[in-house]
Parts: sequence; structure tokens; C-alpha cells
Amino acid sequence: MRLATIRTGNGHACVRVDDDQAVEIGHADVGALLADPDWRSVASSADGARHDVDTLDYATLIPNPEKVICVGLNYLDHIAETGRERPSHPTLFPKFARSLTGAYDDVPLPRDDESTSADWEAELGVVIGSPVRRASADEAAAAIAGWTVVNDLSIRDYQRHTTQFMPGKAWEGSTPVGPHLLVAEPGTTADTPSFPISCIVDGVVMQQSNTRELCFGPIDLIEYASTFVTLVPGDLLVTGTPGGVGMARDPQVFLRRGQTLTTVIDGVGECRNRLV
Amino acid sequence: MRLATIRTGNGHACVRVDDDQAVEIGHADVGALLADPDWRSVASSADGARHDVDTLDYATLIPNPEKVICVGLNYLDHIAETGRERPSHPTLFPKFARSLTGAYDDVPLPRDDESTSADWEAELGVVIGSPVRRASADEAAAAIAGWTVVNDLSIRDYQRHTTQFMPGKAWEGSTPVGPHLLVAEPGTTADTPSFPISCIVDGVVMQQSNTRELCFGPIDLIEYASTFVTLVPGDLLVTGTPGGVGMARDPQVFLRRGQTLTTVIDGVGECRNRLV
Repeated sequence: MRLATIRTGNGHACVRVDDDQAVEIGHADVGALLADPDWRSVASSADGARHDVDTLDYATLIPNPEKVICVGLNYLDHIAETGRERPSHPTLFPKFARSLTGAYDDVPLPRDDESTSADWEAELGVVIGSPVRRASADEAAAAIAGWTVVNDLSIRDYQRHTTQFMPGKAWEGSTPVGPHLLVAEPGTTADTPSFPISCIVDGVVMQQSNTRELCFGPIDLIEYASTFVTLVPGDLLVTGTPGGVGMARDPQVFLRRGQTLTTVIDGVGECRNRLV
Repeated sequence: MRLATIRTGNGHACVRVDDDQAVEIGHADVGALLADPDWRSVASSADGARHDVDTLDYATLIPNPEKVICVGLNYLDHIAETGRERPSHPTLFPKFARSLTGAYDDVPLPRDDESTSADWEAELGVVIGSPVRRASADEAAAAIAGWTVVNDLSIRDYQRHTTQFMPGKAWEGSTPVGPHLLVAEPGTTADTPSFPISCIVDGVVMQQSNTRELCFGPIDLIEYASTFVTLVPGDLLVTGTPGGVGMARDPQVFLRRGQTLTTVIDGVGECRNRLV
């Protein structure tokens, strides 16, 4: 089952995306749906207004998540390219709801006098489907609603102004998420999923890996983060990026206005965003 | 003028705190009030239900801020005790709404098998009163609603698991905020305010400084943060702590269950929290 948040004449609507039709579920967005403990059956049985999928205008998957928790240095190849050792704990930093944008929306780069170091980071998004604190591995697996596609677009100089990454990671409207939540069937999430993941800039493949290369998988991340805070339905974990970022190239390559950034996770979805 | 969010029989209420009486304003909390562009006149003219101030049960000042942006290493004496140089940019990290608690609430420490390194950090809180992006200094000053008291209680080992502070800074219910918003009169916020600030553990003064020692003042912080994201009414900036934290002592001193943590900013307010 695939779910999405679309823009309609009156705001947002949560839909189930079947083959060529999207069916309204009755909730304002995917986050609002997930707040209903019966969301799986509500979503699968919904029979509301229908839209041709070719006409959909996708909003960011979860417009108002309580938390967006991102992971740095979480693919072994990316750890290698940054020159660091394999970490003992996941490196967590935030984005704000306001940092997110839709799967096909234009992404505004910083003004030229602010930064010219925008970089790509294709990432698997994990969406939380039930509240969990101090989760065991089994509880963590049961708390996963499913998967989505994220580009953790990063403004490298702001990321490196100090030790803390946040200013380079939370730029307004910089992070495409979606278009779909690929719902994970309960009991199928015990292992790190194996999805090919890639990032393409104007047709050139810049990153290519597989989510099974994650150092800390979704279960590890939920166990660790839920130690200190309750994860709630609609929270988004952004699991880190593989090697091939522009900052680590020689010479370095950064994103420019007018380019198209494509983020693909095979079997999950694709974001395609023009940089403006 | 002082504002607060109190717990009532039916949830929360925003009140104006006059001498010995608190007057309900009609909004659910201080954050909801600040979303009204006319909040200053609405608050000052309110004449709703009254409560004896001795009976108030204070909720955290802003229960659902869109953003909580904290600053590390922002007092010259604290920078010195951590052995670092004066920074070129503010060190920003987040908390979640779920990390906050009331000015007199019990604060749950981590379980003993999770961490025994809870530490104090008395801090001036700056509350945003109007939306601002890419603020000039004047625009930043005009966006300040006022001041409050925060203790950025920190779990030092989680803070130091990786380069990123967030896991040690965002523990659920760990951060007292309040009891009041001391409203800043427009035009009076151009300079960093001069308030004596201190932190007291079981009657022993552990930190004592003045907010004029801030390296990056409120205006600087708003200018910098608003470069990358719109600050909105109810956002909370937590401006950093002076010297005297437990981690920097020799031997180190950490908080223990049963102790009382008192955070004082003269003229602004006082939080007093039992550690449980």
C-alpha cells in the first residue's frame, strides 16, 4: 500500500495511491492519518473521492511532523570518503518541518551571497507509525509505518560554521520528501531493507548504493533515539547518505540553480526537484 | 507585562500575570497568543477569568513551539572552561517541544543504566513574537516578544556520543522553561539585556554571571538563524550558559535524584525543579 499527501483546492488531503487512481482517505495528510491507531485498516478500506494519479500535486509527505531526526555518517562508503572511523553511536541532527518540501517542488538554493555550497544527499526515510519510547528491537520494528525517499540537501559551509550541523541542514524548503509512503507490512521490518538508492544531477549519477549498507539500520536508530524521546506517529527518520557527495569529490562539485536533482530508491519512489 | 501558560481543569490557558492575580486572555497558551499579530494589545487589555497567583500551576511557557533553537558556547567564561576559542558563528542545536517542561515541574533524570551525567545549564530564553526571515538587526529586535528562564539540562555522555549534541540535549521533559514571558517593550531590545543569571543546586550556587556576557546576543542569533529558516511567533531561542557547569569541574559533579535545581534570572524569573 502507498499513501501520499496531495494538494487540493482546499488544502491537503491524504490519499491511498492505487495503480492509476488516488483515493482520498478523509484525513488532512499522512501525518494526521498515522495518528489514528487503526490507520492501516482505515487507509486500506477508504473509498473517498478519486483522482487520476497523473493529475496529483504532491505536498511533502508529512507536512507537520513533530520531529525530523536525521543521521550523519551512516553508510560505510560515505564514512570512508569523509575520512572518519566507523562510529559507535548514530550521529543525530534535526531538521524542522519548515525544512521539508514536496517530491517534485522547486527547491530554493541560498542566495549567492549566502552560500554556493549546496550538496546532495540521497537518503531512505523511515516514517514512524505508532508511539514508542525505550523501544526493544521488536517494538522498534513494530513502530515502523514504512519507507519514503528524502534528499537531505545540505549547505556545506553553514554545516561547518561550527561543530553542529543544523544550520546547514535545516534550510527552509530544502528537503524533498516523498512522493509516497510505501507502507511496511508488520513483521517485515526486522531487518534493514535492501533497496538500491541513487542520486542523479542533470542526468549524471552521483551516488549509487544500497540501503543494506547502512551502518545503523532503522531498528538501531529507533532503539537509540527512543531512549531519550518518545517517537510518535508521523515522525520522520532520515537515515543517512551513501558515498558520492559533491563535497567529498576532487574537485568539489556543488549544486547550481537550474539543475534537476533526482533522488531514487528503487521500489520506494523518486523525487525530482529543480533548483531555483 | 508578564504572560504565562497555566494548567486549568480543561487544559491550558494563557494568562497575564498582574501582581497577585492572573487574568485569562482567551488563548490556549502563550504560543497561541503570540500567533495573533495584535498580541500585545490583546494581552494588555484582556479582562477574563482571574486566578490568585499563589494557586497557579504553570505549564511550560510555550507547549508547542514550532522550533526550539539552542546555542552552545556562548558565554566567554563557559567558552574558557571548555578550552575552546571564541567562535566565529553561533553553535546551534535543537530541542523538541517534547523536551520542555514547566518551571516548577519534576524533571525525570535518565535511568541509572542509561546515564548518570545530567548537568545544569542556566540560560536566558528569547521568545519570538513576529515572523522574520533574513532579518536585519532592526527587524531582529522588533521580532523579540520577550525573555524567559530556561535550564538547558544536558545529559553529557549522550551529548558526547558523537560530534552532534542533540541526543544529550533533547531528553523528554528535561528542560524547564518559564514561569513567565517578560514582555520586551518594542524598541528596548536593540542591545543584549543585562540580567544577572545563576544556577543553584540544593542551595549551592553553581553558576553566576550576567547575560551581557553573551558572545552572540539575541539580535545576532536572530539574524543568523533567520538566514536559513523563518522564525515564527512562539519559537524559543535558548541563548547558552555561563561557566560553572558540572562537567567542567574537577572533580566533575552531576545531578542526582532528589536534588532541587533552581535557575534564576534576576528581573525575569526563577525555575525550581526537583530531579526525580
